[in-house]
Amino acid sequence: MPSISRKGVSMPESPIRKLVPFAEAAKKRGVNVIHLNIGQPDIKTPKVALDAVRNHDIDVLAYSMTEGSEQYRQKIAEYYAKNDIQVTSKDLIVTTGGSEALYFAMGTIMDAEDEIIIPEPFYANYNGFATASGVKVVPIVSTIDNNFALPPIADFEKLITPKTKAILICNPGNPTGYLYSKEEIQQLAKLVKKHNLFLIADEVYREFTYEGREHYSILQESGLEEHAIVVDSVSKRYSMCGARIGCLVSKNKDVIQTALKFAQARLSPPTFAQIASEAALETPPSYFDEVKKEYVSRRDILVSELKKLDDVKVAVPQGAFYCVVELPVKDADDFAQWLLEKFDANGNTVMVAPASGFYATKGMGKNQIRIAYVLEKELLVEAVQILGKGLTLYASR
Amino acid sequence: MPSISRKGVSMPESPIRKLVPFAEAAKKRGVNVIHLNIGQPDIKTPKVALDAVRNHDIDVLAYSMTEGSEQYRQKIAEYYAKNDIQVTSKDLIVTTGGSEALYFAMGTIMDAEDEIIIPEPFYANYNGFATASGVKVVPIVSTIDNNFALPPIADFEKLITPKTKAILICNPGNPTGYLYSKEEIQQLAKLVKKHNLFLIADEVYREFTYEGREHYSILQESGLEEHAIVVDSVSKRYSMCGARIGCLVSKNKDVIQTALKFAQARLSPPTFAQIASEAALETPPSYFDEVKKEYVSRRDILVSELKKLDDVKVAVPQGAFYCVVELPVKDADDFAQWLLEKFDANGNTVMVAPASGFYATKGMGKNQIRIAYVLEKELLVEAVQILGKGLTLYASR
Ligand SMILES: Cc1ncc(COP(=O)(O)O)c(C=O)c1O
Ligand SMILES: Cc1ncc(COP(=O)(O)O)c(C=O)c1O
Repeated sequence: MPSISRKGVSMPESPIRKLVPFAEAAKKRGVNVIHLNIGQPDIKTPKVALDAVRNHDIDVLAYSMTEGSEQYRQKIAEYYAKNDIQVTSKDLIVTTGGSEALYFAMGTIMDAEDEIIIPEPFYANYNGFATASGVKVVPIVSTIDNNFALPPIADFEKLITPKTKAILICNPGNPTGYLYSKEEIQQLAKLVKKHNLFLIADEVYREFTYEGREHYSILQESGLEEHAIVVDSVSKRYSMCGARIGCLVSKNKDVIQTALKFAQARLSPPTFAQIASEAALETPPSYFDEVKKEYVSRRDILVSELKKLDDVKVAVPQGAFYCVVELPVKDADDFAQWLLEKFDANGNTVMVAPASGFYATKGMGKNQIRIAYVLEKELLVEAVQILGKGLTLYASR
Repeated sequence: MPSISRKGVSMPESPIRKLVPFAEAAKKRGVNVIHLNIGQPDIKTPKVALDAVRNHDIDVLAYSMTEGSEQYRQKIAEYYAKNDIQVTSKDLIVTTGGSEALYFAMGTIMDAEDEIIIPEPFYANYNGFATASGVKVVPIVSTIDNNFALPPIADFEKLITPKTKAILICNPGNPTGYLYSKEEIQQLAKLVKKHNLFLIADEVYREFTYEGREHYSILQESGLEEHAIVVDSVSKRYSMCGARIGCLVSKNKDVIQTALKFAQARLSPPTFAQIASEAALETPPSYFDEVKKEYVSRRDILVSELKKLDDVKVAVPQGAFYCVVELPVKDADDFAQWLLEKFDANGNTVMVAPASGFYATKGMGKNQIRIAYVLEKELLVEAVQILGKGLTLYASR
């Protein structure tokens, strides 16, 4: 039997997926599992987007342009202009989700063995794309004690080697909920210019910022044009994760030209999804105001409920819809499995994402979990109470 | 300015894309360009597929399962059963086009520097996916003189090294139109078993076989279970290239398990496209009978028209909807550009795909072009006549 690739062997499994069989078994036992583990918003997709697809008048469902239709790309550029980001349709490629933009970005700027520095904890699939590209992730630790703020620039400099090609940040962060300040972005800008690196910013949660704080994009930082690569997506913005549309944005012409060659190989992004995404741009600002209000109140209730639990530490999120929670347990992987396998409170339990999967450094985050607050408030309250009961019982086993 | 990757530099450009600016300039001059260069069928997408999307009742457009919905995968398995291929839903992963299945297949079984043997001429994007994976394409020449039949097994054996991991065939072939016989598949089966290699078959044109000849899938060959990987797609089958749905099929559990990790990194295939693709499976067999009849008559007229031209050689296709044509020119790249840049016949010209882009060996196919017969017959006749005039004028420059 021929053997699979070394790369394939070392591809990481999704950190949540391991728990899925236990969740399924719990459901089979009749236990109600409240999902705190996934970043799938429950928010309704804007009707204008769904209707555009309902009303399509396609008779031959043809390939679209490799880089996305000119019309859609122009509208994306207008969307950026409204967000104080000056780009043209030529500076961007429509991708199959932010996921594909990440893959294109890595392939475009990095060869096997090259290094990319990423503050941890980070979105777990960065590991997958890096492994698929043969690229080495060099984690830099950010800590729950300051809400996962940017690590000191001196710490970055210690990690830079001749193989370092890029720094990748997620802003606002999954799983941290941290929103980088303009000053932090400017520190990074100085750093990447000094060391001639790329700065990739995953800004798929751009809209989700709280307490009136504004998102500062790396594309707004002047002088960074040749260094900045933005990964973007409609998935969370319009609660249309299933569309699979995102984009890669850079003013660096070599980057766009090269990414376009990766894009050509896969022909085109999905057509129906582009129709939905183009229409979604008509979504009125009031939609976001409401969504934001909803997320803020969910966050507030989640954090205040979590703070009621003994020995639990929470990083208060300023953006996105996740938070990292430190628990009084040794091994959150074991605890998360136990919650599904051995526990229920009046027939209910919760599924959480162990945070270890969001760290590249072995052993880090062992006592942390990530909670996604994409559920209604009452359910969140209930979920935290169940989590609290679980913690108590787990401690007294 | 930071530099892009070596990989990015060596990513091939689409062989057709180079000509696009010349085609656009021609159109600007008022010249009518007949496209013989693209594999985008003009056939109508089955209404049942388009209607399923029109009638969707989604309100939250959520991620689907990473491997595609269980229901859709079961229906795909039924589709295979109807085609005498015995697989279950567990043996397949729904992908974003056949393109993504190719990428997953290469990543799953090959590391950087590994080698894959591919009969040339071949679908140009195999080069792109190989380059993106750092994999080396080892071409083996097939020739127009026998319609691009399978090269002798002894020729394959000469190319096998310790780094060889797989042989990749396209059946029926793009750009060759060649349909491998059962005997040829069995020769390959013996070969890959002997040398412990994978055999990847790109069977996206499975339905398009002519003169009553039946397609023989590598999945039908018993004893090949651990070696066979099939790349499939709805793009051409149902003329729904814009959907971006395909699948990867293998009975080798390691292959599926590993490919699933690549799939997890990109989360899920597009939802609307899965709805369309699932519905497309309801397409009655009569649709294919008609489509096949149409393609056969197009092929017949195309070939007979081409044969009227002096010093033109045609590989008569037995499948798919392409044919490779050898022209009395030294450099078909130059000729194709000339047709767009310097020529018209009563305001008309043709755009063809120079075949050099379908060869990995430098200098091969320099006097060949690929024609896709995805146009109505009258237009095909006209196009060949224009091509003939072009050849005459080009020769007499
Ligand atoms: C930080 C981050 N980046 C990128 C993605 C990829 O999303 P998509 O491919 O749906 O755009 C996600 C999805 O959860 C994410 O959380
Ligand atoms: C031989 C072959 N394989 C794969 C593909 C990829 O098609 P898709 O990604 O649309 O399924 C094509 C498209 O032209 C093709 O001709």
